[in-house]
Amino acid sequence: MRRTFNFLLLTFNYFNMKDLKQYIETNKDRFLEELFGLIRIPSISSEEAHKPDMYKAAEYWKKTILDAGADKAEVMETEGNPVTYGEKIIDPALPTVLVYAHMDVMPVDPIDLWDSPPFEPEIRDGKIYARGADDDKGQGFMHAKAFEYMVKTNQLPCNVKFIIEGEEEIGSPNLRKFMEEHKEMLKADVILVSDTGMIAPDIPSITTGLRGLSYMEVEVTGPNKDLHSGLFGGAVANPANVLTKMLASLVDDNGKITIKGFYDDVEEVSPEERAEMAKAPFNEEDYKKALDVEELAGEKGYTTGERTGIRPSLDINGIWAGYTGEGAKTVIPSKAYAKVSMRLVPNQDNVKVSKLFEEHFKAIAPKTVKVKVTALHGGQGYVSPINIPGYKAAEKAYTDVFGKKPVPVRSGGSIPIISTFEEVLGIKSILMGFGLESNAIHSPNENNPLEMFFKGIETIPLFYKYYAELMK
Amino acid sequence: MRRTFNFLLLTFNYFNMKDLKQYIETNKDRFLEELFGLIRIPSISSEEAHKPDMYKAAEYWKKTILDAGADKAEVMETEGNPVTYGEKIIDPALPTVLVYAHMDVMPVDPIDLWDSPPFEPEIRDGKIYARGADDDKGQGFMHAKAFEYMVKTNQLPCNVKFIIEGEEEIGSPNLRKFMEEHKEMLKADVILVSDTGMIAPDIPSITTGLRGLSYMEVEVTGPNKDLHSGLFGGAVANPANVLTKMLASLVDDNGKITIKGFYDDVEEVSPEERAEMAKAPFNEEDYKKALDVEELAGEKGYTTGERTGIRPSLDINGIWAGYTGEGAKTVIPSKAYAKVSMRLVPNQDNVKVSKLFEEHFKAIAPKTVKVKVTALHGGQGYVSPINIPGYKAAEKAYTDVFGKKPVPVRSGGSIPIISTFEEVLGIKSILMGFGLESNAIHSPNENNPLEMFFKGIETIPLFYKYYAELMK
Repeated sequence: MRRTFNFLLLTFNYFNMKDLKQYIETNKDRFLEELFGLIRIPSISSEEAHKPDMYKAAEYWKKTILDAGADKAEVMETEGNPVTYGEKIIDPALPTVLVYAHMDVMPVDPIDLWDSPPFEPEIRDGKIYARGADDDKGQGFMHAKAFEYMVKTNQLPCNVKFIIEGEEEIGSPNLRKFMEEHKEMLKADVILVSDTGMIAPDIPSITTGLRGLSYMEVEVTGPNKDLHSGLFGGAVANPANVLTKMLASLVDDNGKITIKGFYDDVEEVSPEERAEMAKAPFNEEDYKKALDVEELAGEKGYTTGERTGIRPSLDINGIWAGYTGEGAKTVIPSKAYAKVSMRLVPNQDNVKVSKLFEEHFKAIAPKTVKVKVTALHGGQGYVSPINIPGYKAAEKAYTDVFGKKPVPVRSGGSIPIISTFEEVLGIKSILMGFGLESNAIHSPNENNPLEMFFKGIETIPLFYKYYAELMK
Repeated sequence: MRRTFNFLLLTFNYFNMKDLKQYIETNKDRFLEELFGLIRIPSISSEEAHKPDMYKAAEYWKKTILDAGADKAEVMETEGNPVTYGEKIIDPALPTVLVYAHMDVMPVDPIDLWDSPPFEPEIRDGKIYARGADDDKGQGFMHAKAFEYMVKTNQLPCNVKFIIEGEEEIGSPNLRKFMEEHKEMLKADVILVSDTGMIAPDIPSITTGLRGLSYMEVEVTGPNKDLHSGLFGGAVANPANVLTKMLASLVDDNGKITIKGFYDDVEEVSPEERAEMAKAPFNEEDYKKALDVEELAGEKGYTTGERTGIRPSLDINGIWAGYTGEGAKTVIPSKAYAKVSMRLVPNQDNVKVSKLFEEHFKAIAPKTVKVKVTALHGGQGYVSPINIPGYKAAEKAYTDVFGKKPVPVRSGGSIPIISTFEEVLGIKSILMGFGLESNAIHSPNENNPLEMFFKGIETIPLFYKYYAELMK
């Protein structure tokens, strides 16, 4: 019965755009209030103190999915933070879409650079300002509300499963095991993810490639205690000086990473493909102006787009040693630390790269210091073809809403779990992102334009429509 | 009358060592309790929040000097922290000793490495543990108690003036002006300072040279906000990466500082003098073992003693950028900072060197970043001859108490104000230090062996005795 009903909808009355827009307009204040409830939970996965907030966020997602019309939803334990799973199976014969999102967010420091408290969402100039406004509470929530629309109006054309995890920002250390243990439950035809961006509000794009990640922490120990820099300065290796030398040597003057074997598995992109990529709109002057830098920097021989899209990179994400307070302290610190991450491109294995980094870093350490290297987290890169039904459905959906065919782009960012989904479950992911560069994810004053939030809710049901049609 | 009385003492009954030791033994618990009262005041001069503590410490010193027998003592304002001045003028015809010490202390972080709270002095294994136990509350207090002994037993052979300042650890920014405004008040024949160390408890030494200091802070700005290291990594200069490259380049592989013109004014010490210095006892294996380092490092062609005694050095005293908390945050920081200090040797001018550093640092900055350089503080180096009465008196006093003639040494540390005393007041300083290397000044668990504290009190009256005799 339901099957027939859905079939009828598909054929005759399917997704009246006017009705969809009307539904969003009627419910938008409620949508925002519900999203704000989620944002107010400070679910920072990298800080142990926020463990209880992870459970609060998981319960909030469970209620959200159930209220939207799921048959069932539950908070499931892992060895780390919980996962919220929910589903609505309308007909086993219909295709199944697995929606992935994450409920955890990045830390908020430097807190003094925020114009409003990060966990008290505020609307200013048509944008939601809050940690998680985009990444990934804002984008994840679009799926809950699009799902609600399809259920409440009896227009759901596919089975839907939700998996909302709580450790994406720390590299999803427990989700692989969770997938392996729940392969049957997570069975689907396609994974739909909104955790990426578009080029601009008027230039829709779909991310087809993601870089992998290898994130390391290093500790360099010199003398066994802090020393007076006058009495010992010049006679004892200062671990802060040594660390700067070691880190400085990791990238050469041509922007090449010097770690032995680092480029061995890097997939070289053909000149033809690079020519194709070069067609993507990019204005270097605007880019520099937006960042307020006089010159860009990076690997010689590659464009800015290539440097983040098809080439690996190495960044110091944090460094600290000695006295960092007000005024002067004449100390030679006993220890110096840094967090260093490498973005990897397809074919590079993050475990192998972490190992290469560790070996290299230890090899270049002078005998004046002791070195400790820890791999904090990592993930593989990902590439999606653009001729599969999932991609095609997304392409059509964006075209309907934004009036332009989306551009396929390779993003510099990493969502390590995407390659794990393919590896463990054998399912491709469609990265249907609605984030803008100006959303400042991971930074102070993260935001999300209301317009993009509502356009996302509008686009998603169209994906379901076209996907169901293409899979018939 | 008083004059005659003192003369008699000088001739017949002067400084019975047994009586001096007995006085210390009888009063030692009170001495310690009084010192602890001073230590308990957290007079950290580099932290604005401790401003009121500077006044408490100044008042405490005023009471200490008056109780010990001064004619007068007062807390005097400067544009920064106050100065405590006190004096006892027994006869204008007698020589005058100006005692200099400082009441301010270094910050206490990393606080978690202290075994007991830094401002709650504790005696363990015969040592006082506390911030300031040595530098310079412990050593300064010896002078107050030695003075007390001489006054209470009517054996003071010289006029005495005390100047206790509150900004030594931040480079005495206001003391030059204070000196210039109070030249007459501060008139003296010699300045006596206990703010340095001895080679070992059984190897007394007197510091005859101090290095100068130029202490800088640098700020490197890349993009105008923190960026996601995935989306931007490889395409935008990361200021933390840039800062490590810039800092790493400041000292070359031979341990030579690369700042243009840096060595221009460095006084080259003659081979003969270096041969003389090489006779000072030094065991490299013990030194390495004490610091738990496998190898030492420094300027090629110089010994460890020379590297801190007669050669300049450059150290990173602090560095910070990006995410330094628990776990991983994939951020490209907008700004990176470092505190860098250079120890200077005689003839190098700290103002000139700070200028050279600033010019050099700006010159090596790539166009991808903006650079800000601030000179935090500085001071000139100092050399004292060993044939003046002050040195000779100190030499005899140490010999009496320690049973060995002290070795003259050039210290790597800086007491910038010492060269200013000479410049403004025209008075040489005698650096009569009793600190040991193991006292961990400026570090967690700063300490001072009780034995050294009491031996200091014993040595100082003997200095007065011999100085008065030599000046007759």
